Amino acid sequence: MADEKKLTTRAEDFSEWYNEIVLRSELADYAPVRGSMVIRPWGYGIWENMQRALDAMLKDTGHENAYFPLLIPMSFIEREKAHVEGFAPELAIVTHAGGKQLEEPYAIRPTSETIIYAMYAKWVQSYRDLPILMNQWANVMRWELRTRLFLRTTEFLWQEGHTAHATAAEAEAEALMILGVYRRFMEEWIAMPPFTGVKSDTERFAGAVKSHSCEALMQDNKALQAGTSHFLGQNFAKQFDLKFQSEAGQEEYAWNTSWGVSTRLVGGMVMSHGDDAGLVVPPKIAPIQAVIVPILGGEDEAPVRAKTEEVAARLKSAGVRVKVDARDHISAGAKYYEWERKGVPFRIEIGPKDLAKGSVALVRRVTPEGEKRKAFIPEAEAIATLPARLDAFQGELLEAARRRRDANTVRGVTSIDELAEALDGGAGFVFTGWSGDPAVEAEIKERTKATLRAIVDEEFRSPSAPAKCVSGKGASVAEVAWARAY
Amino acid sequence: MADEKKLTTRAEDFSEWYNEIVLRSELADYAPVRGSMVIRPWGYGIWENMQRALDAMLKDTGHENAYFPLLIPMSFIEREKAHVEGFAPELAIVTHAGGKQLEEPYAIRPTSETIIYAMYAKWVQSYRDLPILMNQWANVMRWELRTRLFLRTTEFLWQEGHTAHATAAEAEAEALMILGVYRRFMEEWIAMPPFTGVKSDTERFAGAVKSHSCEALMQDNKALQAGTSHFLGQNFAKQFDLKFQSEAGQEEYAWNTSWGVSTRLVGGMVMSHGDDAGLVVPPKIAPIQAVIVPILGGEDEAPVRAKTEEVAARLKSAGVRVKVDARDHISAGAKYYEWERKGVPFRIEIGPKDLAKGSVALVRRVTPEGEKRKAFIPEAEAIATLPARLDAFQGELLEAARRRRDANTVRGVTSIDELAEALDGGAGFVFTGWSGDPAVEAEIKERTKATLRAIVDEEFRSPSAPAKCVSGKGASVAEVAWARAY
Repeated sequence: MADEKKLTTRAEDFSEWYNEIVLRSELADYAPVRGSMVIRPWGYGIWENMQRALDAMLKDTGHENAYFPLLIPMSFIEREKAHVEGFAPELAIVTHAGGKQLEEPYAIRPTSETIIYAMYAKWVQSYRDLPILMNQWANVMRWELRTRLFLRTTEFLWQEGHTAHATAAEAEAEALMILGVYRRFMEEWIAMPPFTGVKSDTERFAGAVKSHSCEALMQDNKALQAGTSHFLGQNFAKQFDLKFQSEAGQEEYAWNTSWGVSTRLVGGMVMSHGDDAGLVVPPKIAPIQAVIVPILGGEDEAPVRAKTEEVAARLKSAGVRVKVDARDHISAGAKYYEWERKGVPFRIEIGPKDLAKGSVALVRRVTPEGEKRKAFIPEAEAIATLPARLDAFQGELLEAARRRRDANTVRGVTSIDELAEALDGGAGFVFTGWSGDPAVEAEIKERTKATLRAIVDEEFRSPSAPAKCVSGKGASVAEVAWARAY
Repeated sequence: MADEKKLTTRAEDFSEWYNEIVLRSELADYAPVRGSMVIRPWGYGIWENMQRALDAMLKDTGHENAYFPLLIPMSFIEREKAHVEGFAPELAIVTHAGGKQLEEPYAIRPTSETIIYAMYAKWVQSYRDLPILMNQWANVMRWELRTRLFLRTTEFLWQEGHTAHATAAEAEAEALMILGVYRRFMEEWIAMPPFTGVKSDTERFAGAVKSHSCEALMQDNKALQAGTSHFLGQNFAKQFDLKFQSEAGQEEYAWNTSWGVSTRLVGGMVMSHGDDAGLVVPPKIAPIQAVIVPILGGEDEAPVRAKTEEVAARLKSAGVRVKVDARDHISAGAKYYEWERKGVPFRIEIGPKDLAKGSVALVRRVTPEGEKRKAFIPEAEAIATLPARLDAFQGELLEAARRRRDANTVRGVTSIDELAEALDGGAGFVFTGWSGDPAVEAEIKERTKATLRAIVDEEFRSPSAPAKCVSGKGASVAEVAWARAY
C-alpha cells in the first residue's frame, strides 16, 4: 500500500526522524521481544552487502571463519574479573532446558572471548600452532535498558574476531591492522569516515589492555562508536590457560586480540546519509542500485514494459543491481516516493514519450549542490554511464560525510566552559588536551553528557599538541576527542 | 603437529570412524556446553560453500533474506497445539535477564514459525502484499538427549524459509518447488542424491499439514533426513491472525510453508563420501580443491618453492581454490596424510626432479575402480586440465553415491519378517506397500528400529505398485520406504 504520510524532518526531531526512516523504509520493525527487532529484507540486504565486503577483507588478511556456541557456562564468564564486571548486568540467562533445571546456568553470549579462548587452549601446544586468526559471524545478546533500532538492541548481529599470537608485538600489530581494515571498510563501503583513536581506561572494553576505536559523526553531531579492536594482552590467556611452548622451549601465555562490528553500522549509515525524504544508501552496499519505473496507463503499455525489461537486462549485464517496479496498482508517483524513502541511488523512468525519443529520465537520489537531480538522456548513454555514475555517487557521499565531520569538529578548546559551550552550540567532536585523569571525564560527563570518545590517533591530531588539560589542572598528556554519543 | 595415529575403519566401527573423522579432519570439536560443538574453519568453510550455493538458488527462486529474533515468548510457542507438543520437551528457556527474573520466560527458537507468522500478520493487509517469500540463516536450539557432532547437536545452524500465500494451491506448489531445489542442491553440490517423499502422520513436522522430505542413504545404510519442506495449511495463520483481504474483498487466512536444511548436511557429506583414510570433500564445496606440496630438503629449495607458488597462481587464475603447504617442520609424507584426511580432492607434488622434467605428480583423493591415483604429467597439462578433472571428480562422487543408494535399496518386500531380515542383512531402504495404519509403523519400529522414512514420490516408486500392506493386513494405499535412521 502506498505510504505517503510525510516524514518528520531531521530539524524537527532527529530521533523521531531516525525511527520513522528505519520503520517506513522497511529496514526493520519492532519485535514482540523486549528490545529486539526484526531485520526486514531491505535492511538485511544492506547488512549482507556489508558482510560480504568485510568478510572478503578479513579473508584477504588471513582470517578464517568458524562458529562457537551461543551458550557460555556462567563459570567461564566469571573467570576474567574485569570482563564479568562489565558484562554481568546485561546477561540473559538460560536456567532450564529439556524440561529440567540446569545444574549450571548458561549465559547467552554477550561476546565470546571466554569460550573461544577456552577452545584455543585445547588446540594450541607449540608456537607453530600460532597465530590463530579466526572470525565468527554471529548473534549476541546484551540486555540493555534503553534500546534503539539497530543502534542498541538486546540481540544484534555482528562479527567478532579472536586471535592468539606468540608475542605482544604481533598481537598489538594485529589489533592495529584490523582497526585499519575497519576504517577502510567504513570509508569505502559505507561512505562513513570515522576518526580513530584509543579508548581511555574508563571506556575500555571489559578485559582489554588497549581498545582502539572507530568514531563516526552522525548528522545530529552525536558520535557513533562504529567498531572496536582490542589488544587483550595475556588477560584471557592466563584465565583460560592458553599456553604454548616457545621456539626457545619455554612455556608461555599467548597474546590475544578481539574486534567487532555489528548491525549498528546500518544505523550509522542511516544517520550519515539520510535526508528528509528518507534513506540514502551508498551504491556499493545498496541491494538495488537503480530502480526502473515504467510510466504506464497509456493506450498500449506493452512496448513500455518491454523496454523497461530490456534496459534492466542490459544494466544487469553491466553489473548493476537493478529492479523493475512494474506494479500496476500503484501510481508512478507513489513508487517514486517509496524508492526515494528506501534510498535507492538512481531511478530510471521510461514512458511512451521516452520510447519515441529513445531517451530515459535518469534521477539521482541526491546531488551535489547546484546540480540537477533529473536528466533526460539517450537510453544508450544512461546504460553506458550508470556504473561510473554509481561510483561518483559513492565518492560524493564519502566526501560530503568527511566535510561534515571536519566542519563539525572543534579544535583548540582549552577549558570545560568552552567545551560545554561548543557542545551546546551544536559542535560534534571537540578536541582538547587531557591530563589522563579519569576525574576530568567524570566532571565533563556530568556537566555536558559528553564522553571521551578516544585519545586521537596521530593522523587526526591538531597541528600543535595542546599544552594543558582541558580541566585547567595539569599538563596535557594526549589530545582527546569529546562528544555526546549513541 | 603431525597426527598419524591410524583411523578406525568403517568396517570396524562406523560410528567411531565418523567421530574420529570429524575431530581429526578438524571439521569440528566438542565444546564445553552440553551437546554443543565448535565448527572449526575446515568445517565452517564447507558450510559456507553450501550456504553460498543454496542461498543463490533461493534468491533465484524469488526469496529474500531477513532476520527474526532468537528469543520467542513462551506464549507464542504455546499457541499452535501440535507445535508446542512437538517442541516443548526440547526447549531451552531464558528466565532471567539484565539481573532480573523475566515476567514471561522466553524460549530460544527451536524453529521460528510462531514469531515469523506473528510478524507477517502485522505486515499483510491485502492479497497484494502476498506472497511473502522469506528465508533466514540462523542458529536454533533443541535440547536433545543424545547428540552427535553435526547430526544432532543442541545448537545448530540452518536456513529456515517461511512463506505466506493467498491460496492453498500456491503454497503447496511452493513447498514442492523448494523440495526440488533441495534435491538439486544435494545432488549437484554435495553429490548426495536423496529420494523424496511425504512423511506419515507420525513423522510429520509438528504443526504441518504435509511434510515433504529428502532422505539420503549413508554408507552404513542408515537413512539421513537431509531436508524438509512443509505445507502448513492455515494452522499457524489462524493462531497468529495472519489474514488478508482477497481480490474479491473477502477476509481470508493466508496459507504458509516452511522449510529448512542445516549443518547436519556436513555430517551427511562425511558419511556419503568419506573412506578409511579420512574425509572426501566434493570439489564444488571444498574450501581447498587442490593442495600443492613442495618436496623440500634438497640442496636448493628456492626453485621448488618458487615453482609451487607459480603453479598456485596459475591455478588460481583458472578459478581453482588452491593452497600451497610450504611448512618446513612437517615432512611431505605427513602433509599427504593430513590433506587426505581433510579430503582435499587433488594434491600436486613438485620436487627438484619434477622441476627438471617440467612435470608434476597429480594425485586424486579417490579414483573410480581400476584407475590410477597418481599421474606424472607435464605441468602445463596439469594446470590446463584441473578444472575439468574437478568436474569429473564431482560427477563420479554423485554417480557412486547414486549407485550405492540404489544397490542398497530393497524393493518388493511383502512381510514384516522379510523386512526385518532385509534390514538385519544390511539393507538400506526397504520399499513396501502400506495400509496407512500408524500401528504398522509402531510394530515395525518396535521390531526392527526402522521408521517410515517417507511415502515415496512417483519418480522413485517401483514399476508395479505393491498390492498389500507389509503387515499383511489390508490393501496398500502407498509405497513407502523404511530404514533405520539418524
